[in-house]
Amino acid sequence: MKKHAVIVAGGTGVRMGTSQPKQFLEIAGEPVIVHTLRAFLTAFEDIKLTVVLPVNHIQKGTQLITSRVDYPVEIVEGGETRFHSVQRGLATVKEKSVVFVHDAVRCLVSTQLIQSCYQQALTTGSAVPVLSSRDSIRFLEEGKHRVLNREQVLLVQTPQVFHSEWILSAFQVPYNSSFTDEATVVEMAGYPIKLIEGEESNIKITRPVDLHIAAEWLQEKKR
Amino acid sequence: MKKHAVIVAGGTGVRMGTSQPKQFLEIAGEPVIVHTLRAFLTAFEDIKLTVVLPVNHIQKGTQLITSRVDYPVEIVEGGETRFHSVQRGLATVKEKSVVFVHDAVRCLVSTQLIQSCYQQALTTGSAVPVLSSRDSIRFLEEGKHRVLNREQVLLVQTPQVFHSEWILSAFQVPYNSSFTDEATVVEMAGYPIKLIEGEESNIKITRPVDLHIAAEWLQEKKR
Repeated sequence: MKKHAVIVAGGTGVRMGTSQPKQFLEIAGEPVIVHTLRAFLTAFEDIKLTVVLPVNHIQKGTQLITSRVDYPVEIVEGGETRFHSVQRGLATVKEKSVVFVHDAVRCLVSTQLIQSCYQQALTTGSAVPVLSSRDSIRFLEEGKHRVLNREQVLLVQTPQVFHSEWILSAFQVPYNSSFTDEATVVEMAGYPIKLIEGEESNIKITRPVDLHIAAEWLQEKKR
Repeated sequence: MKKHAVIVAGGTGVRMGTSQPKQFLEIAGEPVIVHTLRAFLTAFEDIKLTVVLPVNHIQKGTQLITSRVDYPVEIVEGGETRFHSVQRGLATVKEKSVVFVHDAVRCLVSTQLIQSCYQQALTTGSAVPVLSSRDSIRFLEEGKHRVLNREQVLLVQTPQVFHSEWILSAFQVPYNSSFTDEATVVEMAGYPIKLIEGEESNIKITRPVDLHIAAEWLQEKKR
């Protein structure tokens, strides 16, 4: 089946303490978003690519992507929340396909994880990568807290991958604050979410130190 | 009140893929465990220090610590599980004090966090540092999974800090597999666990890449 990746670059760099949004900062000489796009192109050379950028960064982002990536990338303007940004990205999915929604700032995602998600979504309709927690966990409720079994607590990553019919129909709803990721939207529409083993290196670049940590993971992969 | 830190170095390096247990590996020229001991000595120059080491590594650990740390450190042999190791460490606590139980491999703990935990435990009897999750969370139960509000999911760190009366009495029980950390033992004995804000840099060194990530955090603190 055809493949279409919607890469969501919502952030404007506030948490990073830089004037540049984090997806444009460089790791090992290449902007974060370019690493991300290359990961998908390495996994599938015929994949369709859509990048959702914050309205103020369309020009810079377009220039940066077109100067570095020799492949057609459709760029669309983000919305008010992640839900709205993804909704706009999904509007570019015109063919029946397996749709990947991925955080632009998870630039270390492996070819293998992208391909495994595709294979699983092809069979089961969805694939969402998760990892068990490495730390003990407590759950806070009504001012009290209690221990949870950490093996039951799953940290959710992206790409979140779905048959286009599922995700396109699921996203035809009004915004709801309980939509924290794509899986919650698709689940709300009644489709089952199938989990898949994520990757410890598939981190989000959100703090200045993450750029350095990501560079260490890149080195680690070469070791 | 007096202070006593029990530093637990249970690991034997299996996950690290090295013959050296991870607490002896070096970051910025100094073994992990030495960074950890220095953090506590910087926080309180009169703190009592106990290190619990795996039985096979007592000799190496003792040599390494005594050659680098010019301060008395009591070294005791670990037990079968973390619970048993902590129990043996606690047997060296002879005076009424605020007791810190800390992972040897969390070598980036700050002076400030150690001191804040002390102040809180002095007032409330306990202090356990936690951080909210940065990722979306799912909870796995009976083969099904559902979303949890990530703001309610707390990742637990060390030092876990208690009045000596609380932790010493709490640890006079038989081992139970639900004891995943010291807070669960103390809580089981009926004492309230007070949480405190942890630190993103207070990571556990458990994988090879963590040595490099820790080095980046050390650099980050200097920036």
